[in-house]
Amino acid sequence: MSVVPFLTTMADAEADAWRAELQSALPEHRVIDPGSLSSSEARGVEVAIVANPDPADLLRFPALRWVQSLWAGVERLVTVLPREIGIVRLVDPVLGQTMTEAVLAHVLFLHRQMPDYLAQQRAGIWRQLDQPLASERTIAVLGLGELGTLAARRLSACGFRVLGWSRLKKDVDGIETHAGGEALRQVIRQADIVVVLLPLTEATRGLLDAELLDDVLPGASIVNVGRGPIIETDALLSALDRGALKHAILDVFDEEPLPADHAFWSHPSVTVMPHVSAPTNMKSASAIAAKNVQAYFDHGRMPDLVDRAAGY
Amino acid sequence: MSVVPFLTTMADAEADAWRAELQSALPEHRVIDPGSLSSSEARGVEVAIVANPDPADLLRFPALRWVQSLWAGVERLVTVLPREIGIVRLVDPVLGQTMTEAVLAHVLFLHRQMPDYLAQQRAGIWRQLDQPLASERTIAVLGLGELGTLAARRLSACGFRVLGWSRLKKDVDGIETHAGGEALRQVIRQADIVVVLLPLTEATRGLLDAELLDDVLPGASIVNVGRGPIIETDALLSALDRGALKHAILDVFDEEPLPADHAFWSHPSVTVMPHVSAPTNMKSASAIAAKNVQAYFDHGRMPDLVDRAAGY
Repeated sequence: MSVVPFLTTMADAEADAWRAELQSALPEHRVIDPGSLSSSEARGVEVAIVANPDPADLLRFPALRWVQSLWAGVERLVTVLPREIGIVRLVDPVLGQTMTEAVLAHVLFLHRQMPDYLAQQRAGIWRQLDQPLASERTIAVLGLGELGTLAARRLSACGFRVLGWSRLKKDVDGIETHAGGEALRQVIRQADIVVVLLPLTEATRGLLDAELLDDVLPGASIVNVGRGPIIETDALLSALDRGALKHAILDVFDEEPLPADHAFWSHPSVTVMPHVSAPTNMKSASAIAAKNVQAYFDHGRMPDLVDRAAGY
Repeated sequence: MSVVPFLTTMADAEADAWRAELQSALPEHRVIDPGSLSSSEARGVEVAIVANPDPADLLRFPALRWVQSLWAGVERLVTVLPREIGIVRLVDPVLGQTMTEAVLAHVLFLHRQMPDYLAQQRAGIWRQLDQPLASERTIAVLGLGELGTLAARRLSACGFRVLGWSRLKKDVDGIETHAGGEALRQVIRQADIVVVLLPLTEATRGLLDAELLDDVLPGASIVNVGRGPIIETDALLSALDRGALKHAILDVFDEEPLPADHAFWSHPSVTVMPHVSAPTNMKSASAIAAKNVQAYFDHGRMPDLVDRAAGY
């Protein structure tokens, strides 16, 4: 039996629920709060499970080889953890399913002109808008990891024309894909709806800047379910204010929760979602984390690690 | 060359656009306004194309055998036309596509709790709600005609559990279907979201009454993209006010446009859409109407007629 600390800055009740779920998924080992470890136990720790940990806590484990994150996004861990410690992202099929549903819901919301119809209802206006078919809309999916690939495929299955873009070239069955900086501009120039599903890395921070947002089609909209800082907030607000962008559905922000006085809250062209596109599912995430940890203790096998240079 | 009157109560500009489109789809015949027919020409008319016609106009054609409607819903024609005149509904694949997109958009809007999140945004509240997966939601599709069948299949392909219901038993690949009055109650009792895609007939008018709406699951929502009078307005308002129903997305109403003083406009649990789920597509509808009319003149072949007893 090994000791597996669970490190998090969650509130106590939530942390307790997670620890209990992780413990029941990992019955052969002890999942514990790092505060209740003796220093000799701490010296023996090779693996930790983390969810927004306090980085200082991780430095207490001199033998730590890798950490299992309970989230898919690991941009903070990449910054704070020494390079020799492996980082494992959560790769959860349930996450892919719920993200795909969210992306489809948001794209259809924009496709069927719901922001306009909701505004018309508030004003008591009965007016029918021209409605193109899905096949007449081009959706750009930026980011073709597990989540982006699933979302691109589902959008395509629902009749949309889909263009996929990623930093490095990826092939996705049935989807036209592009890669690299210049291609990004070409993809964005064709899209009625741009879906951001990129990881936050040094290469993607501020990627959608004033210059790129200036290049969208008239009437185009954007959906950000990746990370807030990938789109420059000032550039986005300016594009919305000018009407260059018609609408933005934002699920992620530079600071979360979104500060109470932020312009996004009351902007008529912004739909604010409280980071709910792909909430981690406690049950499935615990099972996956436990399986990875168990395999390591049984066979010394480490799961796929985050590429520390790429940042994801 | 035969004379084919186009009868409508549309505004002149819209009627002219339709007549021009119909004429270009039917070059061998003359598509004309009934006002410009001589009485001998009127006596020879066997077929008319109609879109909300004034019934009195149709009585001017003693030899009229059938009318081609440009809409899918024909409840008014069924009431006003003598039984010996055949009625042909518009069966347009484009209609099925756009209706399917609308149903999926509305179901995902409810599934992903957008009414709650939009209300939270207005109140500046950042709060994450529990989010089930599509596979954990049951959607009842009432009405399994062309449109209902397509919608049921698409919802199922997107991961929802779908129950189909129709008056007479219909089989739909991969969908659990039920038929008849008592089954309706059982289907509604299981549904998180009820989608109404029935035609308006004497059998469906007021079908969803206070008693049935009392039987929905706690937190269930409803989408009406069929016809307004299928759901009793007072019963619906009462179910929404009591919280028995969580939300209603209504695209169709007893009276359209929805009167300015109607309670639906400002009801916090109602999304009002101006009858846009499946707008007739002028190009494809004209082509289909023209094909039916041409086949009749070429081969004496009448398209499938509405069953006057069933009303659809």
